[in-house]
Amino acid sequence: MLHFVTTNPGKVREARDYLGDDVRQFDYDYAEIQSDDLADIAARGAREAREAAPGDDPVIVDDSGLFVDALDGFPGPYSSYVHERLGIERVQELVAAEDDHGAAFETVVAYADGDGVETFTGRAEGTIVSPRGDGGFGYDPIFEYGGTTFAEMTSEEKNDVSHRGAALAKLADWLDTRSR
Amino acid sequence: MLHFVTTNPGKVREARDYLGDDVRQFDYDYAEIQSDDLADIAARGAREAREAAPGDDPVIVDDSGLFVDALDGFPGPYSSYVHERLGIERVQELVAAEDDHGAAFETVVAYADGDGVETFTGRAEGTIVSPRGDGGFGYDPIFEYGGTTFAEMTSEEKNDVSHRGAALAKLADWLDTRSR
Repeated sequence: MLHFVTTNPGKVREARDYLGDDVRQFDYDYAEIQSDDLADIAARGAREAREAAPGDDPVIVDDSGLFVDALDGFPGPYSSYVHERLGIERVQELVAAEDDHGAAFETVVAYADGDGVETFTGRAEGTIVSPRGDGGFGYDPIFEYGGTTFAEMTSEEKNDVSHRGAALAKLADWLDTRSR
Repeated sequence: MLHFVTTNPGKVREARDYLGDDVRQFDYDYAEIQSDDLADIAARGAREAREAAPGDDPVIVDDSGLFVDALDGFPGPYSSYVHERLGIERVQELVAAEDDHGAAFETVVAYADGDGVETFTGRAEGTIVSPRGDGGFGYDPIFEYGGTTFAEMTSEEKNDVSHRGAALAKLADWLDTRSR
């Protein structure tokens, strides 16, 4: 069994697409530390969650953020706090005042078992634009990827290019190689 | 002995003004968690630092932030990250676009000993203005208190009205009452 630490059943379903039916949701509230580096945050969380997980099973923890190039990576690890307090319009205006509108969504998936912790990073590179589209959540309406915002895509289209999917695919490859 | 967890000798000197000569600097890198609440962050840090402190001595940990009213407390616990990434000009412009320019500096001091953890909060209420003054650090040039920005005050003037001093004074009172 592989325990995915999340309160979101949708994430578990997405993880099963990459990792198989062994993935189970594990509702555990680990301490997120303050760090510039998503991998640090997820790795520490996975280490803590594994101590609390049933049996001797491995766990995965994920953390995501939007990193704006011209703002030195802001809001990065604090994307959800900033989304809540400033909202996407203010973030979009901060970026619009800069020359470079480039940004990346990143997800780090941390896998912890008895041997330690490994982290896997997925990225989607795009551009910050005025809000468009009704789908998705968070910063999706202002993140344009290949001419379309994440909020204009179906969840299938978004999963195909998504940072979380890319990180999960890397983890799946690694587990595959290891089990050979 | 009372161990103040900080890399800043100036903070130790300020603490001695309130708590006496028993205060010693303790250079220890505790995990700061992500939380909306400075008291949570400082209390957890103090608990962790006490485990690592020499002997059975108590420790204090402090955490500070600038809380802007119109931005629902932003940047709050992430003030130093936001200062580094956005800078004070961008923060000031975000506030200038709002009707309400009110803000507060807050410091929480957490004291941990064998009995547990207590937290003490100090606040200074002011207004966000265009940068003025060469003193201080961080957000001091845009934080106006009684007509003067923190960056225009001498360190003595600033200490007299400061949030950190207020929190240290509350801790000193509490220790006094307890030892009677």
